[in-house]
Amino acid sequence: MAEVVLKSKSVRRLLERRLIDHIKFSLYKEGFRDFNVYRMQGRICVEGIEAERAAGVLSKLFGVVSVMPALRTTADLDDIVRCAMDAAGRVLENRGSFAVRAKVVGDHPYSSRDLEVRVGSEILEALRDRGIHVDLDEPERVVYVEVRGDSAFIYTEVIPGPGGLPYGSQGRLVSLFSGGIDSPVAAWMMMKRGAHVLLLFLDQRPYVGEDYYTRALEAAKVLRGYVPLRDFNLHIVGFGEVMERILGCERPNLRCVLCKRSMYRVASLVAQRLRAQGLVTGESLGQVASQTLHNLAVLSEATALPIYRPLIGLDKVEIERVARRIGTYEVTAKGVEGCSVVPRRPTTKADLGKVREMEEKLGIRELEGEAVRQMRKIRLEASET
Amino acid sequence: MAEVVLKSKSVRRLLERRLIDHIKFSLYKEGFRDFNVYRMQGRICVEGIEAERAAGVLSKLFGVVSVMPALRTTADLDDIVRCAMDAAGRVLENRGSFAVRAKVVGDHPYSSRDLEVRVGSEILEALRDRGIHVDLDEPERVVYVEVRGDSAFIYTEVIPGPGGLPYGSQGRLVSLFSGGIDSPVAAWMMMKRGAHVLLLFLDQRPYVGEDYYTRALEAAKVLRGYVPLRDFNLHIVGFGEVMERILGCERPNLRCVLCKRSMYRVASLVAQRLRAQGLVTGESLGQVASQTLHNLAVLSEATALPIYRPLIGLDKVEIERVARRIGTYEVTAKGVEGCSVVPRRPTTKADLGKVREMEEKLGIRELEGEAVRQMRKIRLEASET
Repeated sequence: MAEVVLKSKSVRRLLERRLIDHIKFSLYKEGFRDFNVYRMQGRICVEGIEAERAAGVLSKLFGVVSVMPALRTTADLDDIVRCAMDAAGRVLENRGSFAVRAKVVGDHPYSSRDLEVRVGSEILEALRDRGIHVDLDEPERVVYVEVRGDSAFIYTEVIPGPGGLPYGSQGRLVSLFSGGIDSPVAAWMMMKRGAHVLLLFLDQRPYVGEDYYTRALEAAKVLRGYVPLRDFNLHIVGFGEVMERILGCERPNLRCVLCKRSMYRVASLVAQRLRAQGLVTGESLGQVASQTLHNLAVLSEATALPIYRPLIGLDKVEIERVARRIGTYEVTAKGVEGCSVVPRRPTTKADLGKVREMEEKLGIRELEGEAVRQMRKIRLEASET
Repeated sequence: MAEVVLKSKSVRRLLERRLIDHIKFSLYKEGFRDFNVYRMQGRICVEGIEAERAAGVLSKLFGVVSVMPALRTTADLDDIVRCAMDAAGRVLENRGSFAVRAKVVGDHPYSSRDLEVRVGSEILEALRDRGIHVDLDEPERVVYVEVRGDSAFIYTEVIPGPGGLPYGSQGRLVSLFSGGIDSPVAAWMMMKRGAHVLLLFLDQRPYVGEDYYTRALEAAKVLRGYVPLRDFNLHIVGFGEVMERILGCERPNLRCVLCKRSMYRVASLVAQRLRAQGLVTGESLGQVASQTLHNLAVLSEATALPIYRPLIGLDKVEIERVARRIGTYEVTAKGVEGCSVVPRRPTTKADLGKVREMEEKLGIRELEGEAVRQMRKIRLEASET
């Protein structure tokens, strides 16, 4: 956890403990048993498992900067050499280049430089028939040796994790989750920063297609794979009646703003009910007509809760890049039957006074509380991912 | 402009026109004269300049996805071949690999496939003594040929621009700009999305060092390089008196929240005065004690304006990566003499009621209006960057 070093000792301790819980949960969920997890000088060690398969699980956990499947041996020089040669033998290809990088923490009869020279020359000697050579600047393979106290860890692979902070360590947020490309990325980014994100789908059927709903469910299942908790749900609030009411508005160009504001209010009611401290939305400035600064201000005014918009400064191509990396793109880029009642020219400069007057006149707000009372949730299984 | 294709025709036209103005301004500022800028089927062409040097200027403009310094010739096949061989001769190294990629728009006696084969074989023949070869999958160099109407463009280099939307096309925001690593990145990201960002430095001297101020000024100058407008200022509001008042608070652990809330209010007054539609801040969830969801809610409550936090979902390492790319890192990572009155344990769970009571009691708000009335600004020269 790169950022954990920014924290005070007590906060750091709490975050590490939470991450250890997540590691245990995730491994257990994947069928691992009888493993051992403990802290060791700023690292978290997991022992007694098949390293390669476990690394795939652990590199998905928020708070993890990198995972190194390592061999552990004693700090004895001969043991280290033997173990490093083993590791090198497995990964070095014919005529390949390599380097040894060592780090020594604690009191030992050798320096890290000593280790690098000794281990490097022994590997060179042992694998002479493969025609390998040392390249300190751009090696194809690196053999890492880390000596900490009585132990030495040898590894040749560094698998990047998502970084961020342990899931749920920063409190709760409600995400307005449509299942399009943007909202899952927005939810994921806040998850990565340690928020427990409650996914809320506002069910606009019959004004959207059946596939609109199934896409959201599929996207939620992908995100579920990042959540190291027993329970994780997709919350669903029926929004059809609100939309029907909005269709009564005599100014069709206001529809989208009325609809979005109502969604913000519904999400705020849900946040209240689930004790969340803010909303997450997938808006990006200027991406579409409804996302002008003017309209965003009109939308924001609908709720007293803070609205977090992690994509506000990103381009569509940047958002898509994250979506691909986290695995939501394939599901969310699907064409689905979107809202059938979008007006020809949704306003980019909604008049707040007019909007509020219309909300009053149509009695939209009365429907929202009832819709939230009938909220249902779909439990997403930890194993489904 | 990748995203310009998402827009309606009229919006697209407006954005392109704005970008053309920025191109003219930036080139003129850099001493270019007698050039010609025009639209051509979704591309913007600039003619009559030294392409390589101009590309450096243009690739910094928001809204630009990529810049290709190109040679222009007629759509005649022999002309294209001659021109492409010229270009290839300049960039292909001994024993290097290359490919030709062609695109043909309009009615021509050859297809793009024809062009690729013909141009490729002519280059191969002409540069035989260099021992070059064709590699369609991973060429070291690509010779691009684009035929549009009567013209053909030949280029071998694609320089990435920042993307986003033309500067200022999306309205105005006020940035709480401290000059640390985060706030310039936050401002830049909103600039990239087309906001005209007004930089506001709250001058905390004497509670911070002189170098705190100079760092902010230097950082503002770096951002200035991205602004294709004649006028761009650093706005400065004296904040010493407000801080002095806050120091009177009998609960030191509330100081940071009181200070930040006051900054938000001052920024909102400035936004009102300068007709901006929201604030930009550099907060990232959980990065430091003041950036818990709880505290962010207490801060947000201080203003009715929307607060845009483009870094809220980013890790420190991700923010630093952007800072390096845009050129602010070197200036903003400098150690400076920060706030000297930060309490030992700033609260992470400020009680809103207590905070408001304290603001009342200390009479903080009265000082804010006067401070804004005395706002001064430093004009940042377009040429200083």
